[in-house]
Amino acid sequence: MRSQAPPSAPSGGLEGIAEFDFGRAARRGYPEAVLCEGKTMDHLVAIARAVGDRSSSNGHEPLGTILFTRASPDQAEAVCRELPGAVHDPVARMVAWPGPAPEPSGGTVLVLCAGTADIPVAREAWLTAQHLGRPAELVVDVGVAGLHRVLARVDQIAAASAIVVVAGMDGALASVVAGLASAPVVGVPTSVGYGAALDGLAPLLSMLNACAPGVAVVNIDNGYGAGHLAAQIAASG
Amino acid sequence: MRSQAPPSAPSGGLEGIAEFDFGRAARRGYPEAVLCEGKTMDHLVAIARAVGDRSSSNGHEPLGTILFTRASPDQAEAVCRELPGAVHDPVARMVAWPGPAPEPSGGTVLVLCAGTADIPVAREAWLTAQHLGRPAELVVDVGVAGLHRVLARVDQIAAASAIVVVAGMDGALASVVAGLASAPVVGVPTSVGYGAALDGLAPLLSMLNACAPGVAVVNIDNGYGAGHLAAQIAASG
Amino acid sequence: MRSQAPPSAPSGGLEGIAEFDFGRAARRGYPEAVLCEGKTMDHLVAIARAVGDRSSSNGHEPLGTILFTRASPDQAEAVCRELPGAVHDPVARMVAWPGPAPEPSGGTVLVLCAGTADIPVAREAWLTAQHLGRPAELVVDVGVAGLHRVLARVDQIAAASAIVVVAGMDGALASVVAGLASAPVVGVPTSVGYGAALDGLAPLLSMLNACAPGVAVVNIDNGYGAGHLAAQIAASG
Amino acid sequence: MRSQAPPSAPSGGLEGIAEFDFGRAARRGYPEAVLCEGKTMDHLVAIARAVGDRSSSNGHEPLGTILFTRASPDQAEAVCRELPGAVHDPVARMVAWPGPAPEPSGGTVLVLCAGTADIPVAREAWLTAQHLGRPAELVVDVGVAGLHRVLARVDQIAAASAIVVVAGMDGALASVVAGLASAPVVGVPTSVGYGAALDGLAPLLSMLNACAPGVAVVNIDNGYGAGHLAAQIAASG
Amino acid sequence: MRSQAPPSAPSGGLEGIAEFDFGRAARRGYPEAVLCEGKTMDHLVAIARAVGDRSSSNGHEPLGTILFTRASPDQAEAVCRELPGAVHDPVARMVAWPGPAPEPSGGTVLVLCAGTADIPVAREAWLTAQHLGRPAELVVDVGVAGLHRVLARVDQIAAASAIVVVAGMDGALASVVAGLASAPVVGVPTSVGYGAALDGLAPLLSMLNACAPGVAVVNIDNGYGAGHLAAQIAASG
Amino acid sequence: MRSQAPPSAPSGGLEGIAEFDFGRAARRGYPEAVLCEGKTMDHLVAIARAVGDRSSSNGHEPLGTILFTRASPDQAEAVCRELPGAVHDPVARMVAWPGPAPEPSGGTVLVLCAGTADIPVAREAWLTAQHLGRPAELVVDVGVAGLHRVLARVDQIAAASAIVVVAGMDGALASVVAGLASAPVVGVPTSVGYGAALDGLAPLLSMLNACAPGVAVVNIDNGYGAGHLAAQIAASG
Amino acid sequence: MRSQAPPSAPSGGLEGIAEFDFGRAARRGYPEAVLCEGKTMDHLVAIARAVGDRSSSNGHEPLGTILFTRASPDQAEAVCRELPGAVHDPVARMVAWPGPAPEPSGGTVLVLCAGTADIPVAREAWLTAQHLGRPAELVVDVGVAGLHRVLARVDQIAAASAIVVVAGMDGALASVVAGLASAPVVGVPTSVGYGAALDGLAPLLSMLNACAPGVAVVNIDNGYGAGHLAAQIAASG
Amino acid sequence: MRSQAPPSAPSGGLEGIAEFDFGRAARRGYPEAVLCEGKTMDHLVAIARAVGDRSSSNGHEPLGTILFTRASPDQAEAVCRELPGAVHDPVARMVAWPGPAPEPSGGTVLVLCAGTADIPVAREAWLTAQHLGRPAELVVDVGVAGLHRVLARVDQIAAASAIVVVAGMDGALASVVAGLASAPVVGVPTSVGYGAALDGLAPLLSMLNACAPGVAVVNIDNGYGAGHLAAQIAASG
Repeated sequence: MRSQAPPSAPSGGLEGIAEFDFGRAARRGYPEAVLCEGKTMDHLVAIARAVGDRSSSNGHEPLGTILFTRASPDQAEAVCRELPGAVHDPVARMVAWPGPAPEPSGGTVLVLCAGTADIPVAREAWLTAQHLGRPAELVVDVGVAGLHRVLARVDQIAAASAIVVVAGMDGALASVVAGLASAPVVGVPTSVGYGAALDGLAPLLSMLNACAPGVAVVNIDNGYGAGHLAAQIAASG
Repeated sequence: MRSQAPPSAPSGGLEGIAEFDFGRAARRGYPEAVLCEGKTMDHLVAIARAVGDRSSSNGHEPLGTILFTRASPDQAEAVCRELPGAVHDPVARMVAWPGPAPEPSGGTVLVLCAGTADIPVAREAWLTAQHLGRPAELVVDVGVAGLHRVLARVDQIAAASAIVVVAGMDGALASVVAGLASAPVVGVPTSVGYGAALDGLAPLLSMLNACAPGVAVVNIDNGYGAGHLAAQIAASG
Repeated sequence: MRSQAPPSAPSGGLEGIAEFDFGRAARRGYPEAVLCEGKTMDHLVAIARAVGDRSSSNGHEPLGTILFTRASPDQAEAVCRELPGAVHDPVARMVAWPGPAPEPSGGTVLVLCAGTADIPVAREAWLTAQHLGRPAELVVDVGVAGLHRVLARVDQIAAASAIVVVAGMDGALASVVAGLASAPVVGVPTSVGYGAALDGLAPLLSMLNACAPGVAVVNIDNGYGAGHLAAQIAASG
Repeated sequence: MRSQAPPSAPSGGLEGIAEFDFGRAARRGYPEAVLCEGKTMDHLVAIARAVGDRSSSNGHEPLGTILFTRASPDQAEAVCRELPGAVHDPVARMVAWPGPAPEPSGGTVLVLCAGTADIPVAREAWLTAQHLGRPAELVVDVGVAGLHRVLARVDQIAAASAIVVVAGMDGALASVVAGLASAPVVGVPTSVGYGAALDGLAPLLSMLNACAPGVAVVNIDNGYGAGHLAAQIAASG
Repeated sequence: MRSQAPPSAPSGGLEGIAEFDFGRAARRGYPEAVLCEGKTMDHLVAIARAVGDRSSSNGHEPLGTILFTRASPDQAEAVCRELPGAVHDPVARMVAWPGPAPEPSGGTVLVLCAGTADIPVAREAWLTAQHLGRPAELVVDVGVAGLHRVLARVDQIAAASAIVVVAGMDGALASVVAGLASAPVVGVPTSVGYGAALDGLAPLLSMLNACAPGVAVVNIDNGYGAGHLAAQIAASG
Repeated sequence: MRSQAPPSAPSGGLEGIAEFDFGRAARRGYPEAVLCEGKTMDHLVAIARAVGDRSSSNGHEPLGTILFTRASPDQAEAVCRELPGAVHDPVARMVAWPGPAPEPSGGTVLVLCAGTADIPVAREAWLTAQHLGRPAELVVDVGVAGLHRVLARVDQIAAASAIVVVAGMDGALASVVAGLASAPVVGVPTSVGYGAALDGLAPLLSMLNACAPGVAVVNIDNGYGAGHLAAQIAASG
Repeated sequence: MRSQAPPSAPSGGLEGIAEFDFGRAARRGYPEAVLCEGKTMDHLVAIARAVGDRSSSNGHEPLGTILFTRASPDQAEAVCRELPGAVHDPVARMVAWPGPAPEPSGGTVLVLCAGTADIPVAREAWLTAQHLGRPAELVVDVGVAGLHRVLARVDQIAAASAIVVVAGMDGALASVVAGLASAPVVGVPTSVGYGAALDGLAPLLSMLNACAPGVAVVNIDNGYGAGHLAAQIAASG
Repeated sequence: MRSQAPPSAPSGGLEGIAEFDFGRAARRGYPEAVLCEGKTMDHLVAIARAVGDRSSSNGHEPLGTILFTRASPDQAEAVCRELPGAVHDPVARMVAWPGPAPEPSGGTVLVLCAGTADIPVAREAWLTAQHLGRPAELVVDVGVAGLHRVLARVDQIAAASAIVVVAGMDGALASVVAGLASAPVVGVPTSVGYGAALDGLAPLLSMLNACAPGVAVVNIDNGYGAGHLAAQIAASG
C-alpha cells in the first residue's frame, strides 16, 4: 500500500490548500475569517502559518484581527501554537489573533440571548463585534417566558445602534425585541432545543416571519455572521 | 356513455356515505361535528338530512348542537336549507344547528388572536366553545410587535380557565401568553403569512417549541379543535 | 495560548449565566424548571447552587419543587450534589428537588404509553404531574396493534381529568383514546421508531391530524411539557 | 406567427405519443391502465382510439378491461366517445372499457374507508379490484374516532383475502385493522385534511410506521394501485 | 338561514377588527404598516378609515406615512377611496398615504435585483426605503450569469450605506455583492423560478449560507421588510 | 442522591414494562415480534424471560417462533442467554426462538436486493419469511445499473408468489421487477446511500411512485415488515 | 387615486426592465434565452422588441437564435407579434426566433421520455438542442414498466453523443439508460405524477441517486436547460 | 447461543455477496467502481479478491482501473492488502487499482472548488477523471466571496472541455463559472457548512436553480460521479 502524496504545500505557501483573501480588509473594511470546522488539521495549520508569515513580511497593508471560528479544542490549540499572542475563548469556540480587541469606535452592539444554552453563540457574536471594532454588550437569559426580564432592558435596547438576538426553540425574542427597538435587529436562531426544533429550523422560520419589521436573520448558530453584520451596521453608529 | 349509479342511499339512511357517530355525545360529552370541506354536496346534504331525521324521531338521546365546519358558502346554504333554525357565521365558515348556543356553564374560554387576518380561525374557536357550553371571550389583534396590547389583557388572562391563542407568522404570542397565565394554553397556528411561513408550518413549529410550558398545539387553522379542547378543559372551570 | 476568562460568576450569583425566573410560581402557579440538555456543567451547577441558596435565604416565597429535566447521568449527579435531598429518576432522566412530591390535589392525570420504548417519556410526564401536585397513574404498552389492551382501560380513561398519550411510530393511540374519552388528551409524539418515523415527525403529524377532536400536541419527547399541561388541566379536576 | 406542427400521429398509430404496452396482460396477468391526468386531450383520444383499434383487429390476444384513471369529466366523456360500451364512475373518476366487470374469481377484496371524504379513492380501489376479476366489498366511514364502527366489521375483516384501508388525516385506521386481520393490508393515504395533513403526507408517514406488521402503502390517493395490488394478492384467495 | 352578525365595528372604531399600533412611530421611529393580503375587504376598509380619522383628529402625534403592502388591485382601489391623496404602485402592489415620500435623509439605500421577474419585490423595497425617509436607488437585472453587469456597479455599491439584494433561483447575487461591499447586505429571496426553486426556499437557503459575511435575510418576497431594515441601517448613514 | 426505584417488575411478570400480545398468533396467525431497538436492557431481558416462562407453562396455545429484531450484539447475546435454543443472525441483527424455522408451506417468497450494502435488510426479510413458514429465496446485487443481472432472474420472478425488493439510492429495482412480475411486489427502501438519498427517503419516494402497478412499500430498512407481509401474501400461494 | 408611473422605458431601451446579455453568444457560444414565466406582459414585450431592434441594427455580432421559454399562449402570441418569423411550439411552450433551426453540426442528442405526459418537457429539450445546432432525436413513452421498450432502443442509445432522459414519478429510466450507455446522461425530472411525487421531487431525488454513474440532473421540468447542456456536450460529437 | 452461518462465499466467488458487473467496461467504456461505504469488511474483502482473481485469470477482457470510493482508512488498508499495487489517496478516501492512471486522452477536465473544506470531494473528482483517462487540473479555494480568484482563472476555464464545480454553503460558484464558460459544468454540492446548509441541500438546490444554463448536478459530495461524467463529456474533447 502506497499512500499518494497530499496536495503539495510549497514553503510557507498555500498552493493546493487555500487562496487566502488578504485583500479583503482593504476592499470591504473587515478581514477574512477562517472557519475551522471541516478543515483538516494540516490545512488549518498551513493557513495559520501563512497568516503569520504574511503579517511579519513587509510591504503589505496590516491584516487586522484574524478570527478562527468554530474551532475544536485541538484546532484552537494548534492555531494558538502557530500564532503566538492569539487568544482562545473556549465557550465561543473562537481564536482571535492578535488577541486584544482594537479600540472601540462607532455605535454600541447589544447582544441579547434567550437562554443559558444560547450563550456560546451569543458570545461568538459579542466577541466578533468587539474584534471588528465596536463597543459591545452581552445580556443573557431574557427569554419571553418571563417577559419582565426583557422589559427591564428597554433603555439598553433604546441605546444600541445594532441589536443581535440569539434564541433557539420558538425564536420569539426576535419579534418582541424588534417591536421595542428603533435599531436594526439581527436574529440568530440556535440549534438549542430538540424534536420539532429541528436543529434550529423552528426558530429560523419563526424569525424569518417576525411580525415586527426590522429583523433579518443569519444562519443557525452563526454568531460570527451576526456579530460581523452588527459591527457593519453600527460602524457609523 | 353510461354513468354508473352513485353509492346507494336508502330512504333517510346514510348507507355507503357515512356512519354518523350519534352516540358520541353520550360517550364523550360532546356530539360529532361535520367537516364540510372535501365532501361532495350530495354526501353533505344526505348527512344534514339524517341529522334532522334523527333529531325528530323518538327514542334517542338528544343530539346536542351539531356544528358544520369549514363550510363554503354553497355548502352552508345547503345545510341551512335542510336544517331550519341553523345559523351560519360566514367569517368562521361555520353552521350551527340548532342556532342558539346552550346556556353557558363552567369556566371562561378566552380566545386571543394575533392579527386581523387570524379572525376567521379565532371566531371558529370562540363559537365552538360557546356551542359546547362555555362562556367565551374574543380579543383580536394583540400580536407581540406591540407588546402593550397583550399586557393590557393580563387580568383577562388571569381570569380565564382555558386560553386559545391564534397566530400565524412567528406564532410568538403563544409563548408570551403562556408565560403570563396559569391556565392551559391551546395554540392554533394559522396559515396567515407567506413565503417562509410555509402555509402555517412556521407558527406550528414555533408553538410546539414554546419556551414557556403549558402550551399544546392543534392543527393549522383548526379553530374548531381548539375551541373543543378549550371547552373540555374549562368544563370543571 | 491564553484562555480568555469564562463569563464571570460572582459568589452565589448567576450573572452572565442565567436570570432564573424565581417569580414564576407566584405568577403562574408552577415554578420554573431547568432543562439540563445543552447547558455546560459549570452553568448547570451554578444554577442548582443558586436555587439552593434562594431557598435557604429568608424573605422569599417558597419556590415549590424544582425539576431538572433531560439530565444526563453526570448532570444528574452534579445537581444532586448541590441539592441534598434531590431525587433522580434515571429512566425519566429527571431530578426533583425537594424529592418527595407534594400532597396530591385536583383530578387524576392518566398517562398512557403505546410501547415499552416510550416509557422514559411517559415516566417524565407522570412524575411531572405528581411533582406539580396531581394524583397520577401510568399505564404502559397499550398500543393499537392489540386493541384489547386499551379497551381494557376504558373505566380508567373515563375517570381521568386529563389524559397524556405517549406514542411513537404511527401515533395512532391518541386518536383512539380521544374517541373514547371525555377528558382532554395531550399527545406526546416520541422519537421511537426509525426510517420514515423521521425522529418523531410521523407521530407528531399523525397526532396533529387526530380524527377525534379533543387532542392537542406538545413537542416530540416532551414528557415534561405534557405532564405540566395535564397538571394545569386537572387542577380544578 | 406560425405554429409548429404537433407530434405526427399516423393513421390509427401512436407514434410520437405513446408506446402502449399491449403485451402487459400476457406478461403480468393484468393489462396496462391509462392515467388520464397530465395528458393532453389529443394524446388521450389517440390512445383511446388505438385501444379500440387493437381490440377490433384480428390476431391479438384479448386486451382485458382497460381502465382510464383520474379522468376529468371532459376526459371521461372523450374516452367514452371513442370506446362505445365504456362505463364512467364520476365519483371514482374512472372509465372502464368494456364496462361490465369480469366474472369474479379468487378471494374477496375488502375496502375500508375512514371518512366520507375518502369515498372517491375507496371507490377507485373497489372498482379496480372488481375489473381485475375479484369479488370486492366497500365499507365507508369507519374511522377510529368511533371505534365501535370498525369493531362491528371484525367478521368481514376475518373473511377477506386482501384488505385495502383508505384514510386521510392520522391514517390510524391502517394500524387498527392490521392488528385485527390475518390478511395483508394495503394502506392508501388520502389527501383529505388540511394544514399539517400536508396533502396526505401525514397519513402516508403514519401508515409507513404502522405499529402492527402486515401493512404496506401505496401513493397518496392511489386507489387504482391499491385495488390492483389487492387483486393480485387475492388472486389465489 | 340567518347569518350571524359580523364582529361589531362601532362608528370609526376598530373593535373586534384591529388594535392599530398608533404609537409605533413614536416608539420605534417608523409607523405600523398594513399587510393587506389575508384581510377581508371589510376589515381593510375599516382600518384605512381609522387611519384617516386618527390623522384628522387633534392631539395626536403625526402618524408618518402609512404603507399598505401586498394589496390586490381591488384592495388598493378601496384603500385609495378611503384615503384621498394615497398613491398606488401596481407593480409593487403598494399604497402609500400620504403619497409623496418625505424629504430624504441619512445614507443611500441601494436595491439590486437579479432578474426582470424580481422587479415587483425590488420596487417594494425601493419604495419602502423612500417612504421611510432615505434616498434610494434601484438597479435591475444584474444576475451573476453575466457577471460584467454587477461588476459595472462597483462604485455604486461602494457608495451605499445599505444594500438590498433581491434574487430568486440560486440567490447567488447576495454572496457576490457582499464580497464586494463594505455596507451591510439585506438579502430578499424571491419566489421567482420553478421546480426545485421550491417557491423561494432555494434562494432563501442559499442566502442564509452566503459564503461572504455581512448578509442577513428576510422572508421570501418580503420587499417591505428589506426596505424597512435598510432604512433603519442607513438612518445614521 | 437517592435513585428512585425503577418500574416494579413482579416475579416473572411484565407490569410497568410491557403487555405482551400473547394472543396475536391465535388472532392474526403470526405471533408478536420484539423490536429490540430503543428498549433498555432491563426491559428487553424481562420480556425475553416472560416469553420463555409463558412457553414453558401449561394451558396456553403455542406461541410460534418469536423474533427479536434490530438487536445490537449485546441485546442479542442477552436474549440468547434467556432463551436457550435461540439463533442469532448477526448480519440481519435478528434472534429467532426457537431457532429452527418451521416446515415451509404456501408459495415461495423471493427476496431481491439491489446492492451488497442492502444485504442486512434483505436477510432480515428472507429470514422472517422463513420463520413465518414460507419457502424463501434470496438473490443479491441485481441493481438496474447492469440490467442483465435482473433479466437473468425472470424465471425465478415468474415462479414466486410474493416478491420483496430491497434497494437504496434510486430504488429503481422495484419498478423494473414489478414490470416483469405477476406476483405482488413489496418494496423496502434502505438507508444505503448518502447526501440526497436522505437516509432512505429517496428510494422510499421512488418506490411509492413506481410507474408499474403492483408495488406497495414498507418503512425504510424494514426487512421484518416486508418479510411478514410477503409471508401473508404467499400463505395461500 | 393616482397610479405611480411604471419603470421608465426609453425608446427601444430596456432601462429599469432588463439588461440583456447580448454578449453571451460571443462569450459562451450560445445566446441568452428569455424565461417568460413570471414576467409581466409589458416587460416581456419590451425585451422582445429590444431583441428585434438589436438584430436589425448594424455593427453587432449576430445574436443567434433567441428562445423564449415557458411561454403562456398569450405571451407567445405577443412575442410572435414583435418578432416576425418567430415559430411557436405550443406543446413545448417555446418560441424561437428566427424560426428555422440552424444547420446541425456535432454529435446527436437523443431525448428519451418515460411517459406521454412527459412530452412537453421532452419536446422543449429536443427543440432547444436543435436550435443550438445539434441533430436531435425524440423517443417517447419508453418507461421501465415495460422494459422491452427501452431495450429496443439500445442501438440508438449507443449512437448518441449526449442523452437526455425525461421522467416523472420514480425517475427510474435515468438509471436504466445510464447503465446501457457510454454517452453522458442528463436527467430531467418532471412534475408528472401526484401525491408523493411531490411535484417532481421524487424523480429529482431518484435521479440524483442514480445507481449508475454518468448521470447529472437539471431542475424539475427544465427541458430547456437539459437541451442546452446536451448541445454543449455533443458539440464536439 | 449459536450464530447462524453468514452467506456462503464459495472459493474465490461472490455468491450471496455481489454480482460484479465485469462487463461494464466493454458495455459502457468505463469499469464498475466499488462504493465501500455501507459494506461490511467481509463483503468488501471478498469483492477486492474477486477483482484480483478475475484480473489474473485468462480469457477475459482487461478490467481497466477499478476505483474503491468513500473508503474508511481500515477499508482502504484491507483493499490494498488484497490488491498489491493499489494506491490510496486518504484525502479523497479513494483506492485505485492498478495505481497509475492511464495515459491521458481527450479534452481537459477542470475541477474548481470553492473552499478548503471542499478539497476531499474535489480531489475525488480530479482523481476519478484521471483514472478514467483524461488530463485533469485542480484549482482550490476560488469561492465567490473574493471574485478576483475565479476571474483570474478565465483562460483556464475557457480551455477546459468539461468543468466540475465543487462547492458547499451557497453553491454560488456553479452559476458564476457557467456564466463564463462554454464547456458543460457539472456541479457537486458538498456537505460543507452547518445549520441551514442542511448537510448540502442548500448548495444542491442552489445549483439546480443556477441562473446560467449549462449546469447539471450530481449527488451531494459525489466527487466520483462528477469526475466520471466529466471524463465522459471530455472523451471526444
